[in-house]
Amino acid sequence: MRIARFSIDGNVAFGVVEGEGTAPDGLVLDIIKGIPFAEFERSGTKVPLDKVRLLPPVLPSKVVAIGRNYAEHAAELGHEVPDVPFAFFKPSTSVVGPGDRIPYPSFTAELHHEAELAVVIGRMCREVPRERAHEVILGYTCANDLTARDVQRAEKQWARAKGFDGACPIGPWVETAIDLAQAGDLAITCEVNGELRQAGRTGQMIHGIADLIVNVTEAMTLLPGDVILTGTPAGVGPLDPGDEVAVSIEGIGTLTNKVIKRG
Amino acid sequence: MRIARFSIDGNVAFGVVEGEGTAPDGLVLDIIKGIPFAEFERSGTKVPLDKVRLLPPVLPSKVVAIGRNYAEHAAELGHEVPDVPFAFFKPSTSVVGPGDRIPYPSFTAELHHEAELAVVIGRMCREVPRERAHEVILGYTCANDLTARDVQRAEKQWARAKGFDGACPIGPWVETAIDLAQAGDLAITCEVNGELRQAGRTGQMIHGIADLIVNVTEAMTLLPGDVILTGTPAGVGPLDPGDEVAVSIEGIGTLTNKVIKRG
Repeated sequence: MRIARFSIDGNVAFGVVEGEGTAPDGLVLDIIKGIPFAEFERSGTKVPLDKVRLLPPVLPSKVVAIGRNYAEHAAELGHEVPDVPFAFFKPSTSVVGPGDRIPYPSFTAELHHEAELAVVIGRMCREVPRERAHEVILGYTCANDLTARDVQRAEKQWARAKGFDGACPIGPWVETAIDLAQAGDLAITCEVNGELRQAGRTGQMIHGIADLIVNVTEAMTLLPGDVILTGTPAGVGPLDPGDEVAVSIEGIGTLTNKVIKRG
Repeated sequence: MRIARFSIDGNVAFGVVEGEGTAPDGLVLDIIKGIPFAEFERSGTKVPLDKVRLLPPVLPSKVVAIGRNYAEHAAELGHEVPDVPFAFFKPSTSVVGPGDRIPYPSFTAELHHEAELAVVIGRMCREVPRERAHEVILGYTCANDLTARDVQRAEKQWARAKGFDGACPIGPWVETAIDLAQAGDLAITCEVNGELRQAGRTGQMIHGIADLIVNVTEAMTLLPGDVILTGTPAGVGPLDPGDEVAVSIEGIGTLTNKVIKRG
């Protein structure tokens, strides 16, 4: 099931996406009564998807992102693969939705795309055992771990380089029908203006999704709607104002954002 | 004015602390109508402070913490002073209040205290010019940037080392009567079981408060209740289960927490 969050006429709601394929044409949203983190009913009230504004499919209290989780990407930036996973945060203020425009930040001259599979947490959890990791996952979506690469090089910790407003586009919706094994074997790509820049498979992750959930929740509580970003495959590169960047993940859909000049 | 957040009989409220000194005996809370981020009235309904449970004085959507902002502290860990400030996040799930017990985290064997002056943001802001930095500050409180030092050494980014549940005690209240110049010249100490471990002055900061606000908001929006931690002076060291750790800042008060064995 695909769950989107959207606004229409000033109202915000969750809806189940009905129809085939991932192009908005022909897709319909069946508005949800309640929230997707508990049992819910479909209202039967339907809205064409091309009549709404899609929002970030969840509002994370925090995004926990994993660094250098694909060996080829670590190599392309001249880094060793870390022995243990390491994590950094992207704050709630960095989260934007599908179609949102990303103003090129004023404090960088080297904005990079990083296509990532995003794990959306479905329930409050802490110290999750590996064999129960699947129970805390609501589903999966696409993410772009936008990075000010020059700032990342200059500053030892990455709050500014990866936490700026707009640094975390997620969407277009949460796919709940993918299981943990399937999520570990999906094609992931990033295109800029229709040109392929990143192409990988989630199976290339060094630390798998269940291990990441164990690692993160060993330290901290995750809340419903929190998101884990699982790392990016090789091929990261620059974005310029005017560029359209599209992250696509097999079985999920495409997250498209346009970079614009700061106004 | 000192503004506290507290619970009594299951209700949560903000209150203005009345009375002299910082010992709870004799202090009284005058309950606020509304929230302290806008103009508010005192209700005149008063509660003795020793009859309530003090909570974190604000609920930050994010805590932005500055690394190595006191030269002697950078030196004691064997680091150079960074040319530019660098920031990391502590998530909302790490925030606890005065008096809260901190379970010793399972994934570290080297929990350290770091006494810090916390700047509490009063209004939504972005790209704040230096000369207007004072306008976005509600006030100041004490913080303890608890750190799993061994994990910090092992992991390149500090989400786990500094973002675990309980890693960010703040309190006991927000002092709004301190201005920017005064905040840059306060004594700050950390005692463990009554023994002095850290003693410094906020004037030793490498990057001052206004500069930190400029630096952080150049990249990201801060929301009312968000907190900036301004770095710790020299003297950081280990905490063990059973230890009582107290951060005191001149003109603000004392934030005390007990470390307990994980149950």
